[in-house]
Amino acid sequence: MQAWEEKAQPARTARDEGLAQVQPPLQNLPDHLPQNSQSLPKTVLTQRELEITEEYTVSELLAKLRSRELSSEEVTKAFLRRAALAQFATNCLTSLLWDDAIERARYLDSLPDPVGPLHGLPISTKEHHGTKSKNGTANASYVAWVGMPQGSILLYDTLWDAGCVFYARTTQPQTIMHLETESNIYGRTVNPYNRNLTPGGSSGGEGALIAFRGSLFGVGGDIGGSIRCPAAHSGIYGFKPTAQRVPSSGQRTHMIGKETILSTLGPMAQDRNSLELFMKVVLDAEPWRLDPSLTVKPWTPYHFTKPLKVAVQWWDGVVMPHPPMIRALKEVSEACKSAGMKIVEWDSEKLNHRKGWEITSALYWPDGGAEVLGRLEDAGEPILPLTKFIIHEQPTVKSLTQHELWQLCAERDAYRAAYARHWTQTGKEDGQEVDVILCPPNFGAATPHEQSRYWGYTSNWNLLDYPGAVFPVTTVNPEKDKKDESYTPKNAEDKFVYEMCSPETFKDAPVNLQIIGRRQHDEKVIAALVEIEKAMGRK
Amino acid sequence: MQAWEEKAQPARTARDEGLAQVQPPLQNLPDHLPQNSQSLPKTVLTQRELEITEEYTVSELLAKLRSRELSSEEVTKAFLRRAALAQFATNCLTSLLWDDAIERARYLDSLPDPVGPLHGLPISTKEHHGTKSKNGTANASYVAWVGMPQGSILLYDTLWDAGCVFYARTTQPQTIMHLETESNIYGRTVNPYNRNLTPGGSSGGEGALIAFRGSLFGVGGDIGGSIRCPAAHSGIYGFKPTAQRVPSSGQRTHMIGKETILSTLGPMAQDRNSLELFMKVVLDAEPWRLDPSLTVKPWTPYHFTKPLKVAVQWWDGVVMPHPPMIRALKEVSEACKSAGMKIVEWDSEKLNHRKGWEITSALYWPDGGAEVLGRLEDAGEPILPLTKFIIHEQPTVKSLTQHELWQLCAERDAYRAAYARHWTQTGKEDGQEVDVILCPPNFGAATPHEQSRYWGYTSNWNLLDYPGAVFPVTTVNPEKDKKDESYTPKNAEDKFVYEMCSPETFKDAPVNLQIIGRRQHDEKVIAALVEIEKAMGRK
Repeated sequence: MQAWEEKAQPARTARDEGLAQVQPPLQNLPDHLPQNSQSLPKTVLTQRELEITEEYTVSELLAKLRSRELSSEEVTKAFLRRAALAQFATNCLTSLLWDDAIERARYLDSLPDPVGPLHGLPISTKEHHGTKSKNGTANASYVAWVGMPQGSILLYDTLWDAGCVFYARTTQPQTIMHLETESNIYGRTVNPYNRNLTPGGSSGGEGALIAFRGSLFGVGGDIGGSIRCPAAHSGIYGFKPTAQRVPSSGQRTHMIGKETILSTLGPMAQDRNSLELFMKVVLDAEPWRLDPSLTVKPWTPYHFTKPLKVAVQWWDGVVMPHPPMIRALKEVSEACKSAGMKIVEWDSEKLNHRKGWEITSALYWPDGGAEVLGRLEDAGEPILPLTKFIIHEQPTVKSLTQHELWQLCAERDAYRAAYARHWTQTGKEDGQEVDVILCPPNFGAATPHEQSRYWGYTSNWNLLDYPGAVFPVTTVNPEKDKKDESYTPKNAEDKFVYEMCSPETFKDAPVNLQIIGRRQHDEKVIAALVEIEKAMGRK
Repeated sequence: MQAWEEKAQPARTARDEGLAQVQPPLQNLPDHLPQNSQSLPKTVLTQRELEITEEYTVSELLAKLRSRELSSEEVTKAFLRRAALAQFATNCLTSLLWDDAIERARYLDSLPDPVGPLHGLPISTKEHHGTKSKNGTANASYVAWVGMPQGSILLYDTLWDAGCVFYARTTQPQTIMHLETESNIYGRTVNPYNRNLTPGGSSGGEGALIAFRGSLFGVGGDIGGSIRCPAAHSGIYGFKPTAQRVPSSGQRTHMIGKETILSTLGPMAQDRNSLELFMKVVLDAEPWRLDPSLTVKPWTPYHFTKPLKVAVQWWDGVVMPHPPMIRALKEVSEACKSAGMKIVEWDSEKLNHRKGWEITSALYWPDGGAEVLGRLEDAGEPILPLTKFIIHEQPTVKSLTQHELWQLCAERDAYRAAYARHWTQTGKEDGQEVDVILCPPNFGAATPHEQSRYWGYTSNWNLLDYPGAVFPVTTVNPEKDKKDESYTPKNAEDKFVYEMCSPETFKDAPVNLQIIGRRQHDEKVIAALVEIEKAMGRK
C-alpha cells in the first residue's frame, strides 16, 4: 500500500506547479519569516501592485474595472502575485490558477461590455468547493480524495456569470471541522498578523489570504463558525447567512444527505459592503429555480426606522471571554448607546448554551464520525489533534439509532423554539423586540495553534440557524487587556480558556465582534452592521 | 392485561357523551342509512339550520356574524347539530364539543366588537391536533394513547385569537397513514356521497364532515395526500401548503424529530376563498416568531399578468387514472385553453414518479415502522390492512443505518433538484415557464374501502414539497366514464387500479382535480386556482 505521504504528494505538486508559474517570480523574499507578515508586501510587490491590492474597496475596484480604468488582467495579476506571497507567508493556498485566471481576465477585457456586477473581479474560494477551472480536482483535505474530480457548484456558476475571475483556492483543515486550518495534505496555515496564532478555520485559508490582501473577496462555508471564526481571527468581515439562502450544491464534502445541522456558504471580505454585494448577486440569480432546497426569497434590503435595540452577550454562560473581547464589547456597545440605541443584556446563562453544544456536537456526527474516520483510515493518514477533539473528545458523539436521532432532533427543535420565544418576549415590556445580539465571535482573539477547543461562541448560532456577521473592532493591546487575576473559572472549559489568556501571546491579533439576528433575518443583520459601524464613527 | 377494546372504550364513551348533549336531539333518523347520505339533512334539521349551514360561503357567514345579523351561538348550534347528523351518517367525529362551543360562541356574542377575522365562525379540526378545550385529550387513533392529554397547538391559538369557535373534532386512521379513515378506536368513516366508498384519508373525518356541510371550514394535515385525498374524494376544496409555512407544533403525533419528509397542516373547506383566508389569518400572525422552523414570509397574494401556462399531467407514468379523472382533465384543460391559457403536457414518465415513491415510502419509516408498530403492539390492537400496506408491503421500508439514511436523503435531494431543473427548463423555448401543473389528485374518485393502495398522485408532491390545491370538477357519470376495455395495464399497480375500475362502483362520487406549483409558490397556486375556476365559468 502506498504511504499516505505519497498519496498526498500530487496535491502539493499541483499547488507548487501553480505557484511556479508566477511571473515575474517573487523576489526579495526573507530567509526567515517575521512573526507578523503584514510588512512583507511592501518589500516584494511593485508600487502598482500595492496600489491595486491596497487602495480600493471592492466597489471601487469594480467601478474601475467597469470604466476600464483598470484591466481585469492587470488586477488579476496583482492579486495572483500577492496571493503567492500570502502563500509564502501563511501557507493559505491549495492552488494558484495562474493560466486559467489570466485567460479569463483577458477574455473579460476583450468584451465590449461588462458581463455582470462582478465584471473582472478576482475571487478566492475554499478548496473543497471546487471551482470553474477545467479538469479541476477537489480533495477537501482528505488524502483519500486527492485527485478526485471536482463537482459543478451552482454558486460558482452564478459568480462566474456575474463576471468574476477565479484565481486562487484556499486551505481547509482535516475533516473541514476544526476552528483552525491544518491538514496532512497542505500542512498548517498561520495567521498573517502573528504566525504563532491560527487564522482560525475551517475557512482559514480564506481568512489568511484576505487579511493579507491577497484577495479582497472570497467564499467560505460555515457549520460551526467556519466563516466567522477565521474572519474574526484575521480581522476581516464575514457573513454566515441563514442556511438554505445561498446554494451549496456541488461542493465536495462528506456526510452528504445528513440534515441535522446545516452548513451554508457565505462571503469573507476586506470591506463591509462586499457582504451585501455577495448576497445580492447570488440571490438576484434566483438560485432556488435550480436548487429547490433554497428559500424562495429575493434579497430585500432592510431599513431601520428607529434606533436599534441591541442585546449584548457579555459571556455565553459557559466560558468567559478574554479581556480584549470584553473591551471590544464595551467600546462598541458604548458607541451604540451614544448614538441613541437601546442597549440591553442577553442572558445566555438562562438560555443554556451548554445544552446547545451538547445537542450540536452530537448532531454533527450522527454516525459517531464513522464515515469521516473511515476515510482517514482508508488513506492511512494520521488523525490530527483537533479532529480527535471534535469527534473522540466530545462525550455526546456516538453512532445513533434512528430513534436516538429523532430524540436529538426533537431536542434541537425544542431548544430553537425556546430561544425564539425568549427573543419574542424581549419586546414585551417596551414594545420593541431586540433587533440583534452583539456578541464575541470566539472566547478571544486568534488562538495559539491546536488550542481552538471551544466552539460555543459561533456554533450555537448554527444550531439556531441564525445569521451572523463579524466585523473588525480593535487589536489586542497588552496594556489595556490585562488578565483578570482574581477570576475563578466556573468549569473545565472556562479554566482551559482562562489559563490560555496572556495578552503577550496574542500580540498584534485582531479583535472582531459578531452581530446575530433572528433566523432568515439576514438583511436585518447586514443593516444592523451598517448602523453599528456608523455608531463607531465609520462610514 | 386490559384488552384493547376496553382501552379504546373511554374515547368512544367521551365521543358518545358529547353527541348525547345535542339539543334538541336529532329526530326522524332513518333505521337504515341510504347509500348517499346527502338527502338526510332535509328530513332532520330545521329550515333555519338548513339555511345557516347551506346558503352561505364562509365569507358571507363571517359578514353576517360581524354585522350581528347572525349570532355565533345560533350558527354554532346549527353546525353542532348538523355535525352530529354527519356523525350518524358517516362516522366522522371523535368529539362534539357541545358545551365548550356554545360557551365560546356566547362569549364572542357578548363582546362589543369582533375579536378578529374569524369572529364567531365554527371550525372543525382533526382529532390528533388537539384543540383549545380544557382538559382535552388526543390519541391520534392509537389505542395506547387513549386519554393522553393534548398538547398546545400554536395554529389553534392563532385561529382562536382570530375569533373562531372549535366545536367538532374529526377522525383519522390508524397511524394517520392511510388514504382512508379507519381505526380500531373509532371504526370506519364513510363517504357521505356513497357509503360503499371511503372519504379518503388521513383527514377523512374532515372530508366527510365538510362534504356533508357539518362544517364549512376545517383543518387537516398532509404528508402523503392526507388533506388533498379526502378533499378530492369528498368533492370539497383542500390546500396543502409548502411545508414550514403553517405551524404544526403541539399536535399529538408520532416519530417526532424525523425530518425526512415533512408534514404540513392546511385548510379544507366548502369554498375556494376559505383556502386563502386560512393562509392569510395564519401568516398575518407571524407564527415564525414563536415557531422558528417556519419560513419567514408573509402571505403575499400573487397576481398573474398574462394568461397562465398550464402543464397537464395525463398520467404519472405508473398508474393510468380512471376514465372520470381523464374526462375531468379534458374538460378543465379545454376550458383553460378556451380562456387563452397555454396548455402543455407534463411528462411524468421522464421524471420517474416510480422512483419518487421508492424514496418517499422508505423515508416515511426510517426505523422500519418500529415506533409505530410497537405502539400498536403495546396496546394489543390489531394492525389494519392499510397499515400493513404502507409499512409491511412496501419493499423499500426497513430500519436504516445512519449511512443508509443519508444515502436516501441524498437521493431525495437529487430527485428534487432534477425536478426543479426540469421545471425551469419549461421556459427555455418560449420564455414562459410552466406556472402550474394540472393533475389528478388520485387515480380515480373515492375508492371502495381498503382499496387505497396507490399514493403516487398525491405523495410525489410531498416528496417534492410542492404546494397543491384540490377543487371539485364533476361527478362520476357511468354514461360518460366507461371503462377502456382495450387498455393493457403496464405493471402490477396499474393492473390493480385498472381492475378496480367500474363506473357503477363509483356512483355519485365527486371528481376533483389538483393544481400543483413550485415549492414555496403557495400564493401562485391559489391565484392559479382562481384563474382556472374562472376559465371553467365559475365566479
